[in-house]
Order: sequence, then C-alpha cells, then structure tokens
Amino acid sequence: MDFSKNLAQKAGENLKKIREQKPLIHNITNFVVMNYTANVLLAVGASPVMAHAQEEVEEMVSLAGALVLNIGTLSLDWIESMIKAGLRANRLNIPIILDPVGSGATTFRTTSVKRLINELSINVIRGNASEILSIAKKESGTKGVDSIHGVDDASGAAVELAAELGSTIVITGEVDFITDGQRTFNVYNGHPMMGRVTGTGCAATATIGSFLAVDRDPVTASATALAYFGLAGELGAEKSRGPGSFMVESLDALFNIGETELQKNARIEEGGRK
Amino acid sequence: MDFSKNLAQKAGENLKKIREQKPLIHNITNFVVMNYTANVLLAVGASPVMAHAQEEVEEMVSLAGALVLNIGTLSLDWIESMIKAGLRANRLNIPIILDPVGSGATTFRTTSVKRLINELSINVIRGNASEILSIAKKESGTKGVDSIHGVDDASGAAVELAAELGSTIVITGEVDFITDGQRTFNVYNGHPMMGRVTGTGCAATATIGSFLAVDRDPVTASATALAYFGLAGELGAEKSRGPGSFMVESLDALFNIGETELQKNARIEEGGRK
Amino acid sequence: MDFSKNLAQKAGENLKKIREQKPLIHNITNFVVMNYTANVLLAVGASPVMAHAQEEVEEMVSLAGALVLNIGTLSLDWIESMIKAGLRANRLNIPIILDPVGSGATTFRTTSVKRLINELSINVIRGNASEILSIAKKESGTKGVDSIHGVDDASGAAVELAAELGSTIVITGEVDFITDGQRTFNVYNGHPMMGRVTGTGCAATATIGSFLAVDRDPVTASATALAYFGLAGELGAEKSRGPGSFMVESLDALFNIGETELQKNARIEEGGRK
Repeated sequence: MDFSKNLAQKAGENLKKIREQKPLIHNITNFVVMNYTANVLLAVGASPVMAHAQEEVEEMVSLAGALVLNIGTLSLDWIESMIKAGLRANRLNIPIILDPVGSGATTFRTTSVKRLINELSINVIRGNASEILSIAKKESGTKGVDSIHGVDDASGAAVELAAELGSTIVITGEVDFITDGQRTFNVYNGHPMMGRVTGTGCAATATIGSFLAVDRDPVTASATALAYFGLAGELGAEKSRGPGSFMVESLDALFNIGETELQKNARIEEGGRK
Repeated sequence: MDFSKNLAQKAGENLKKIREQKPLIHNITNFVVMNYTANVLLAVGASPVMAHAQEEVEEMVSLAGALVLNIGTLSLDWIESMIKAGLRANRLNIPIILDPVGSGATTFRTTSVKRLINELSINVIRGNASEILSIAKKESGTKGVDSIHGVDDASGAAVELAAELGSTIVITGEVDFITDGQRTFNVYNGHPMMGRVTGTGCAATATIGSFLAVDRDPVTASATALAYFGLAGELGAEKSRGPGSFMVESLDALFNIGETELQKNARIEEGGRK
Repeated sequence: MDFSKNLAQKAGENLKKIREQKPLIHNITNFVVMNYTANVLLAVGASPVMAHAQEEVEEMVSLAGALVLNIGTLSLDWIESMIKAGLRANRLNIPIILDPVGSGATTFRTTSVKRLINELSINVIRGNASEILSIAKKESGTKGVDSIHGVDDASGAAVELAAELGSTIVITGEVDFITDGQRTFNVYNGHPMMGRVTGTGCAATATIGSFLAVDRDPVTASATALAYFGLAGELGAEKSRGPGSFMVESLDALFNIGETELQKNARIEEGGRK
C-alpha cells in the first residue's frame, strides 16, 4: 500500500496544534459515552465541555473550536438543543460533526438525523456503514447501534451523499473511508478490539471534532484524526488482555503518542479523485 | 457442597449461544451504570443498546432479544418509557428483567417498581435483599441503594413473591439465591470486591438479560448468568489491587472466560423443590 | 513548609470515621462523572446514591449524611430538584457542598449558581479559580469548565466571599486553598495528572461531602478530604503511564490508603487568621 507522507505529516502537525491551542470542544452527546469522550478529548489535548440545556448551548458553543452532535441516547428536547447550538455554530463558522448513532434502527433516529442534516450545515458526518446507508436512503437496517454492513457496501453511497450534502462523510470500520464527494481517503490504522468497547465510534467522532478545530479542511482533519485514534487503538491492543485493559491502555496511548510517532505511523491512503 | 453438573454445562452452552447469536439487549437503565453495562454486555458477547425516548422504545425493543429495565436514576418520563417498551416486549414475547434499584429507600422508587410489576409481565426481578423485601411488602428499609439485609433474610419472601407474581426472583449477595416459587438455586461464584464497585448489581442484571435472550427458562438463565458473572469477579479479584483494577480485570475476565472454563467453575447448587 | 500535625491526625480520624459509619452521600450531579463519583465514594468508604427526581429527592436526602450538588450538565428541572433537596437538607441540618462547574462560562450557569446560593444555606463551595471568581463577581471568564486563573488570583476574593456567604470556599489547583473567611488552609497534596482526567474536581467535591458527614467543621473537613484525595493522586501518578492507568491506580489508592498512611502524608498548612 502506498501511504501519503503529506497526510502523515499533516497528522503530526494537527496533533501539535491541538496540544498548543487546547481548543474547547462542545459536546451534545449521549449518556453512555460522556465520561469516556471527555477523557479521550483530554488525552488528545483538547478541552471538553458537555452542555445540553437550551438555555446555554448557544452561549457555550460560541466559545468552542468545534461542536460535536451525537444522537446515541436522543430525546426530543436534546434534538432541539442540537439545532439551537448548531444554528449558532453555523453563524459563527464553527465546524460541526454529527454522529448518527443507530440511524436506521428506529424511525425516530432516522428522522432526527434527517432533521439535523436539513436544518444545519454539517461539516462531517461519521457513522458505521449501516448508519451512513440509512442516511443515504439506501437499503438500511441495522441491529441496534452495530453495523450489519461492511465499509465497502457503503462507500459508493457515501461519495454520492457527500456531494449531495456538501459534507464530508466518514465511515469507520476495518478500514476507515473518508470522502467529500470528490476526494477519497482510506485510513488503515486501527484494531478489531476497538469494536469490543462501547463508545469508540463516538470517541473517534469527538477526536475528529478536535482536529476540525485546528484544520478547516474536513477531509484531512477526519483522516488525520482517525489515523491518530486508530494508532492509539493499535498500541492499546498490544498491551491489553481484554476490553477493560484495552480502554485503559488506549487512553494512555492517546495521551502519550507524540507528533513524530504519529507522523511515522499514520497509514492514510489517498484515493483517486472522482 | 454438591454443585449441579447439568447447570454448569448449561452455563457453558448459554454463553456459547450468546457469542454465536450476539443478541441485541435493549436497556432502559440509569445514568451511573450505562457505560459499564454496555461494556459488560459487549464483553459477554451481546450487542447492547441504550434508548429511552418514548418515540422509539417500542420500535427498538422489537429488535431485541431481551429488555432490561433499571430504575437507578428514575424519573416519571423514564418510567413511562419503561411501560411502553415493556408492553411491546410482552406482546412480542421478549423477556424482561427488572432491577428495582433502591426500592424501599423512597416512596417514589417503591411505587414505581409496583407500577412496573402491575402493568407488565416481568420474567425476572433481580435485587439485593432489602430491595426484594420492599417489593414483598415485608419489613423494608434500605440505606440508599445498599442492602441492610442478608440474602437469607429475604429468601423466604422471595419464594412467596415469585409464586405470587409468576416471576423469577433473584437476590444477589454473598451467595446468590434464585427462585421461581417452586425451584430454588444458589450460586456460589462471586467475590466481595464486587460490592466495592458501582454498578455490579446492575451489570449482573444486564448479564442475566443476555442469558434470557438464549435461554427461555428464567431460572436457569439467571443461575447460569450469575455463575459466569461471579466467576469473572473471582478472576478479576485475583489479579487486582483495588476497585479500579478490579473493574478492568473483571471486564477482561468476562471477555476471556470460555465455555469450557465456565462449565468447569460454575458453582450452582439446586435446592429442593418446594 | 510547616505542615499541621493536628490536621494530619484529623485527616486520619475522619477517614476512619467514614469507614466505620459508611455515610450515605446523596449526589445530584452531572452525567459525565456519575460513575466515577460513585466509584470514588465507594473507594473512600461511603455509600453513594444518585437521585434527581423531584418526587424523591427530599425523602432521599433525609437519609443522607451529606448532599452534593454539581451543575456540570445542568438543566432547569435538575436545578429545581437541587433546591428541593437543599431546602430539606437545610431543615434537617444535613451539610451541603456545591460544585459550580463552569460558572462564568455561560449566563445560565452563573445565574443558576447564584440562585442556589441565595435560596440555600450551603456549607462548602468547591471550584477552580475561575469558577470562584465568577461567583465573587470579580473579573471572570472561563474556558468551558477549565480554569484560566491560578489559585492565587482568587484566594483574596474567596476570603471575602466566604465571609459574605458564611460558607467555606475551596479553590482547588496546584495548591488547594480553603477558607471560611477567617481561617485559611493550604493543601499541598496532589499531582498535575489529576487535571488530565475528567471529573477529578467533581470527585474531590464528593469526597469533601463524605468528610462533611463525619466532621461538621467544614474547613477541617475540606482540608483533610483534599489531603486524602490529593495523596491518592500522588500514589496513582507514581504507578501510572497516562490518564487511563492514572484513573485505575488512583481509585485503587483511595481504597488502599489507611488512616496511618494518610496521617503521615497529609500536607496541610494552616494560614494565619485574618
């Protein structure tokens, strides 16, 4: 495989910028992953805040370098807060990333995602293959929040969806796929153990959020963030004996990976332009 | 003690089935344990989903192999969601397990549990001795969510309650007690450190939920699940130096215990039929 | 530095009392830290309960040794529950500690904190320097939930605020500062890694809550609790290689620190009376 040296270098640079700037990342996310997401963002070097009250989301997002929306344990009033925060973010040109957890599993999730997409300008959508297919109105069907499709099943739909929405679409899986409808990237970093711990997808989304705060090209921000997050998974898996120690070790790895180490080990492949 | 070889074998078989079928387990549970519960279910081999919105619980539970209801941080609208999901589960013959966290500590908890029991057909209720006594209308009184009674204080009431409700009642403690009003089982696996980590009771409930998805006899499902969960506690305690490392090691153990290992080490005693 | 032997001894005594009495600590706290806070309180030796429904908070707090209020993921109805629980606690003379997470970051947080302070008699307020300054109406400004001020910037304002409110004010940071407006204490235990894990401030607040349940002098309760919590951070940092292992090791340390060990290592300095 021919990995991009430019993007590996970019990965290191983005990580360095985050650690220098410590951007505030505003998360409106689900109850399951709040603690883990906050710890991941701290390990990355960002400054996480979780705030969902309609009374404060506009003010909070104004201070942020990026807004992370995640519907993992959605309810109607939280969707309203996401819209409020998102509209303000759009006005202030603050990047938004959406994690459509379980889209396709219930009508409520699918329609909520579509509402967010319709009312907001969203820079990046990161999901598994089933979630992305459900948004692209292709054959959907998921089992709860776990994908029943492979990344390859959804990459074509992702390219079309990206072009249609003007968003970057990210499908994570064995190999991660990133596209803005024109450019496509594959990220080969990662480890199967990441699927055995809850919230790794959500944490990957938040990590992309922190990269968006320092890199306004959503395609390179997403690819470099996933190379970094995947590398931490690889290093964590090496030292662990199961999902409990994997969580501990991969959090330590996120914290300890330096810019040079990331640059050496980022495995990002540039696909041809469409 | 004379442990049942049949049930030890059943434990291994149930675990194998979960890992083959990866049943979706729908949890409407408390904020404290959501992350831990999801990770436990993933380590077991099931596929967890947390969803509480009234707009989606009926659709979500329809996809599930079992429904786990837990009132640990209850509020009125979540109880409504539990009722909605539970009624649909009943109609579809999907097993329900209830964790009456803190029942007896406040009137709101006690009456909410009674409402769930009255309106739903619940297959298994798992609590500590104080919680079970509060449901059985026996002398109650708990200290918050911790039991002030031993399992033996409540086993008689549990047998009566099981017969009255047509449910399986599970009391966890030093020795776990399981009864459907006729049969009684004791499970001797477990470790005192399990009481020093939050959410082990809730995670035991969810683990039983995943066993219910593959074993429709709620008594054997509960006993075999608790043998497995308790064995993971034993193995975790051996390798740990406190509650932090215990959580990590017991999660690793849940993941690593094989069917054969479980079959060899499950310590389930069949009591006489009543 | 001249550390107080009396307060080091008091620290050991307070810890011993908690482990003997296992006081129930009622938390109305944020979603991010609920699990971690409960595990910290269990490691300390207390009995945590999380309950926020307006239907039960008055009854729950009546059973408690202390009430912990934390606005980290506040919403209007949770503030109402805090008021309800707090009024009952005041009537029953149960100590209250408030964690004004992110006060100063949004108007909603600042006004909610002021409402809690106006309507309740609060024994201890623990925050970072920016949060305390925002309450003292001094130059505020925070970055989300992280402080942009040092402890020294806020200690003068804290002394005034303590005198004005009749509360003990605690500012945690590199050196922790505690004052009731007359007496001032500095606590030197702690480690920078504590700032790289989410919820350590919130967990410190809850730990003070458990000390308040056995020591009705809020200044000594706060100082001794922070010496203990900080010592666990020191011991955890020694054994860890990043924030993941730090969380595990510091939780183990909280559990394993004995009264004698705490007495030997508590580094509390008494400042002059004002």
